[in-house]
Amino acid sequence: MTGGLKNRGRTKADVDERRSGLEEVTGAKLEHIGAYSFDPMLAQKNIENMIGCVQVPVGFVGPLSIDGEFAKGEFLVPMATTEGALLASVNRGCSAITASGGAQVIVVKDEMTRAPVFRTSGVKDCLRVATWVHANFNRIKAEAEKTTSHGKLLKIRAFASGRNLYLRFSYDTGDAMGMNMATIATEAASRLIEQETGAVLVSVSGNMCTDKKPAAINAIDGRGKIVLADVRIPKEVVEEKLKTTVSKAVETCYRKNSIGSAMALSYGSNAHMANIISAIYIATGQDPAQAVEGSMGMTTCEDIDGDLYISVRLPCIEVGSIGGGTRLPCQAEALSMIGCIGAGKAKKLAEIIGAVVLAGELSTIAAQASGELGKAHSALGR
Amino acid sequence: MTGGLKNRGRTKADVDERRSGLEEVTGAKLEHIGAYSFDPMLAQKNIENMIGCVQVPVGFVGPLSIDGEFAKGEFLVPMATTEGALLASVNRGCSAITASGGAQVIVVKDEMTRAPVFRTSGVKDCLRVATWVHANFNRIKAEAEKTTSHGKLLKIRAFASGRNLYLRFSYDTGDAMGMNMATIATEAASRLIEQETGAVLVSVSGNMCTDKKPAAINAIDGRGKIVLADVRIPKEVVEEKLKTTVSKAVETCYRKNSIGSAMALSYGSNAHMANIISAIYIATGQDPAQAVEGSMGMTTCEDIDGDLYISVRLPCIEVGSIGGGTRLPCQAEALSMIGCIGAGKAKKLAEIIGAVVLAGELSTIAAQASGELGKAHSALGR
Amino acid sequence: MTGGLKNRGRTKADVDERRSGLEEVTGAKLEHIGAYSFDPMLAQKNIENMIGCVQVPVGFVGPLSIDGEFAKGEFLVPMATTEGALLASVNRGCSAITASGGAQVIVVKDEMTRAPVFRTSGVKDCLRVATWVHANFNRIKAEAEKTTSHGKLLKIRAFASGRNLYLRFSYDTGDAMGMNMATIATEAASRLIEQETGAVLVSVSGNMCTDKKPAAINAIDGRGKIVLADVRIPKEVVEEKLKTTVSKAVETCYRKNSIGSAMALSYGSNAHMANIISAIYIATGQDPAQAVEGSMGMTTCEDIDGDLYISVRLPCIEVGSIGGGTRLPCQAEALSMIGCIGAGKAKKLAEIIGAVVLAGELSTIAAQASGELGKAHSALGR
Amino acid sequence: MTGGLKNRGRTKADVDERRSGLEEVTGAKLEHIGAYSFDPMLAQKNIENMIGCVQVPVGFVGPLSIDGEFAKGEFLVPMATTEGALLASVNRGCSAITASGGAQVIVVKDEMTRAPVFRTSGVKDCLRVATWVHANFNRIKAEAEKTTSHGKLLKIRAFASGRNLYLRFSYDTGDAMGMNMATIATEAASRLIEQETGAVLVSVSGNMCTDKKPAAINAIDGRGKIVLADVRIPKEVVEEKLKTTVSKAVETCYRKNSIGSAMALSYGSNAHMANIISAIYIATGQDPAQAVEGSMGMTTCEDIDGDLYISVRLPCIEVGSIGGGTRLPCQAEALSMIGCIGAGKAKKLAEIIGAVVLAGELSTIAAQASGELGKAHSALGR
Repeated sequence: MTGGLKNRGRTKADVDERRSGLEEVTGAKLEHIGAYSFDPMLAQKNIENMIGCVQVPVGFVGPLSIDGEFAKGEFLVPMATTEGALLASVNRGCSAITASGGAQVIVVKDEMTRAPVFRTSGVKDCLRVATWVHANFNRIKAEAEKTTSHGKLLKIRAFASGRNLYLRFSYDTGDAMGMNMATIATEAASRLIEQETGAVLVSVSGNMCTDKKPAAINAIDGRGKIVLADVRIPKEVVEEKLKTTVSKAVETCYRKNSIGSAMALSYGSNAHMANIISAIYIATGQDPAQAVEGSMGMTTCEDIDGDLYISVRLPCIEVGSIGGGTRLPCQAEALSMIGCIGAGKAKKLAEIIGAVVLAGELSTIAAQASGELGKAHSALGR
Repeated sequence: MTGGLKNRGRTKADVDERRSGLEEVTGAKLEHIGAYSFDPMLAQKNIENMIGCVQVPVGFVGPLSIDGEFAKGEFLVPMATTEGALLASVNRGCSAITASGGAQVIVVKDEMTRAPVFRTSGVKDCLRVATWVHANFNRIKAEAEKTTSHGKLLKIRAFASGRNLYLRFSYDTGDAMGMNMATIATEAASRLIEQETGAVLVSVSGNMCTDKKPAAINAIDGRGKIVLADVRIPKEVVEEKLKTTVSKAVETCYRKNSIGSAMALSYGSNAHMANIISAIYIATGQDPAQAVEGSMGMTTCEDIDGDLYISVRLPCIEVGSIGGGTRLPCQAEALSMIGCIGAGKAKKLAEIIGAVVLAGELSTIAAQASGELGKAHSALGR
Repeated sequence: MTGGLKNRGRTKADVDERRSGLEEVTGAKLEHIGAYSFDPMLAQKNIENMIGCVQVPVGFVGPLSIDGEFAKGEFLVPMATTEGALLASVNRGCSAITASGGAQVIVVKDEMTRAPVFRTSGVKDCLRVATWVHANFNRIKAEAEKTTSHGKLLKIRAFASGRNLYLRFSYDTGDAMGMNMATIATEAASRLIEQETGAVLVSVSGNMCTDKKPAAINAIDGRGKIVLADVRIPKEVVEEKLKTTVSKAVETCYRKNSIGSAMALSYGSNAHMANIISAIYIATGQDPAQAVEGSMGMTTCEDIDGDLYISVRLPCIEVGSIGGGTRLPCQAEALSMIGCIGAGKAKKLAEIIGAVVLAGELSTIAAQASGELGKAHSALGR
Repeated sequence: MTGGLKNRGRTKADVDERRSGLEEVTGAKLEHIGAYSFDPMLAQKNIENMIGCVQVPVGFVGPLSIDGEFAKGEFLVPMATTEGALLASVNRGCSAITASGGAQVIVVKDEMTRAPVFRTSGVKDCLRVATWVHANFNRIKAEAEKTTSHGKLLKIRAFASGRNLYLRFSYDTGDAMGMNMATIATEAASRLIEQETGAVLVSVSGNMCTDKKPAAINAIDGRGKIVLADVRIPKEVVEEKLKTTVSKAVETCYRKNSIGSAMALSYGSNAHMANIISAIYIATGQDPAQAVEGSMGMTTCEDIDGDLYISVRLPCIEVGSIGGGTRLPCQAEALSMIGCIGAGKAKKLAEIIGAVVLAGELSTIAAQASGELGKAHSALGR
């Protein structure tokens, strides 16, 4: 039976044999992991060595009224988490936003990046190669785009230090999150650059991309979609729904997000954006490790004539409505709840995420302002 | 039926009614989300507004030989992801490590932090309050520990700027990840500080904690567990199993992780630690948003007498073997695969994660060094 | 004559011969550089290859009323600069502070650091060495202190990654800035550690010190003196002396220092602290390159009952009242203007710097708030 | 006599009266500060409240062989410092570089920036204003350039968060460092933007410029001139002149600059660039507070076929050959030593600085590699 561990097959029988092997070897009972509801062949491009599924509880928040360019109307948004109190909190934020006329949301940039590193003979050689790259952009673009039907190479930025030349490629990847598309296209383009310039491709990712690490270059230039959202919450809504005052919320945001994050030398001046991003990413089949970049956002609060203005800036929302985990049954269902499955929906999805993050920030700041964070976790959480 | 949306109940009937309501309102079919296998009452402390579960594919990597203080022997480790090629890659790293005698792993610190912000009247008042806090540490500790049977307050660091006083509380939280424990204890302690000093508690989290944002203070001081791991891979194993050479791997690590991350002003000098951390966190019921802090690690490679030395430093592995998502059936099963369920297992879990991250870094660096990243994604991924 | 270039002597005749040689070789006339007023033998520990002096204009600001622990009363403070409008601006800030009752200033920490890096065989070896270091702290301390009559080793923090072990030594260096003292003592201590543990000292500075580079570790833990200062400026003073309103100043500080610096991912949330620090350092014989660390400060403004509260946090004021450039005639004169020459004056000097930085921040924020920055530079500057 | 303190005049008599007043009030003797050699009217645009000059010792390093685009040949370079051993060390580096055929240097970008912050009504309003700005770039450019005969507006980048809109203006400022030019031009342009869009200019500097604070945006995009330099030092030169081995130098650079700086979360991966930048800036009348940005450089070392390759990347060399402190007599003399006074010389100056920084890094890394840092400071320094 333990031979199942060597099985590399992808059918349900293979998966089940493998899980049985594991149970035998480890002594663990894997009943619930085995209780998945779909044909594992559907996941063959999503995982290897599959033994089943982990079931992550999904709930919804909303209705959340959103006034974006692509997302318009009221939405009920799925979130997957095991952190008690999270959905209750975000939901409260949704309620306050909706009662205030809805969230304004925009996507101001949309580019996926990949930055190979080349070895040259020195700084003047880096300049030579970078000059060639800029002079031959169209040729490089053609080479890159041969590998993809959707991706478009938009630009290449060059950064040099010593013998290291980093070329940050930016792509329009359509409705796919697009990192693999960008990787494959960049690899092809890099081979051309190698051949024509003699520079040696050391790695198709030289970490100036930057994927799944917190990096200033992404916070400044964006990666994936830069999403901005805001809303003005009337004084009464703040007091009735959020149980705090405008001045307390503004003060909390200032001392916590602005000053506290600066004191911690943090790349994120927010309350808990990663919670919301992670929960929506897991529910909708996005890459949850990209909550890392997602977390580098900024939340601001201001008092405008006695009302509470709150905004979020999300520099790296890397999502797709096609490809990756969106193909899996549960995840596709979650996307369909918000009308974000399939072609033409990636920006809409990003806008919805922006609005829900706004709701999450609003509610947590209010909870902390009113001294109720611990209380909420005592009541609802672990 | 849509009335189900207002239903706040937590039984299976409640969950199902809510999901049906959602289907009706959104027009989405939520069949697979509804196909969960456990009593939702078990998740009542993990989520609100539950409508079902998202099934995230789980596979395993290993056998991975680990020589830690708590984790000793060979492990088959569960990972949940939708990113094709990830498990295949990590698994290759496990194979190389095991063939090389296993990973050395240690946990060198273990503290959970929470940092409230207080408003004082100015810098001299901050000093007065901080002085009181240090003089009355034992009293504050007693107050904090009244709220918890497991948590121990270890120390409080004070940071002041203008009227803002941040007190970073560090706890031993036993086998729980401990953030809620730390929040609740800190809130109690803060009330005492407020009463005795007159400083005003603005927020129980002042962002010097720092939770779920990339922050230098955590990368330096650690949060949760600081885990170090390394291994020396013989030349032959590098060439046969990893399909590259020692010098190429060392160069890739250097130009990518060391120089590239510095060029991007990144807080993480690694290849893709967040991928591994996120996948194990989701499988085992940890908080996936904490992959944010987890991503701030460092990977180094060196050539030692022709062999490949590789190490990882993980400053923020925030995990528990009790509480939170570990109580859910699939997640508990995943933990039991590696003998990490229940009391006394949190450090073991952290060590295993450290070793798997090492495997993941090793394999990806090797793949990039041999120019096969794009190829792997073409073959296995989306 | 050009033979003078090879002259390594330090007398006035040597210096003059060398300068003449330079004039001949370069064709430049160095008349003013040659017009220094003191015996160059006094500078023999301050420079090599001396050819004369550059004369940097010095002015003063004040009277500035300071209420520190060490600096008490009104001060006229020397600043050396070639940036027009700087002194006029700082002086305006001094005037406003003095009219408001003076600046509150405190030094909350005082430690000079040096962090060698050792090579070990791996992570477990790092732990072994670090454990030895902590167990043998008193012995290491004795070894370090053999090299200095004033320096006291306070603590050692260990940080490990792979084969790299960084030991951050913290010293009380009395009234000297103390970096050389710390370097020499640390080198001696490191030799002991090498001998006893077998770890190999790679470099006495491993950049976790961190000297003259912007580093989060210094902004958080401090290096040299952490200085805090604040003042409350009555509404009338803001309007009459600073030509702006409290709300405009608060808004400018918020959108510029708090939000703008966060958007730029800056380690300094201030207006121009480096200007003031640099100008006082040059005037008083401090190390001007340490304005780098000095620049990592935070300025906050708040409206308190209609008045303007402003504060500065300076995490790295690395100054001495003895040693280094303080021995030179002009620099000693500048120090004597503020009663900061010789033993027992370093903290007083740090407090004065803190207060002048506060004045500089106040004035520039006010100027920017009232839209007069360009105007001031047009009128006074280059 | 103390009435002299109120004197705002700029003649020698005014300066002397003021100094006498200061002597009387403070009891300090200011003889050497009074021994300046030039007419203070020359400094009237460089300082206010002048009382004399501080004499900072100047020496030279070189001959340093440089192969730049603008700087070609051997140079004897002035440096002003009070840090013993600095010039001796840099000089050793110059000697090694010259013996190795000289430093390769290039300037790859040259832009001075200023970034005002505007207040809008929210995120969609930010987009509206940014859209207007991009559509009206030529008109804005014309308005900005009305204020300057040399400055050219090259581009404007927009960054928004909430109600905050930052517009980063980039200028070609010719041979001036250009910050005041940029400020004045940006202020004029901002008034136009205000009038046409209704956005409110809050501050002409919104800290995304970023001036004199360490900021990621500058390290990535550059400010002033981005300078790259490198050299290959033959094995024999390393051993004979630098008293170390190639492998030790490479290891020191790696463990200190690459890994150590990453561990400290530093924005500078170098040994002591700020020392060299600061010393040349003071000697040549540049703004020494801009050593802050200057310090954010990267130094790399590699073993190439047994030789030592070393490079520096300096993202922010903000210098001019006209204007500012370059007009003062000593500073002009220092510039003339290297043929960098007057129009057409700013890039040449930047290249020379790049080469000297390379020499300084080389020598210090070698000294640390051979365990001689403390020794050098003991022998030569304070």
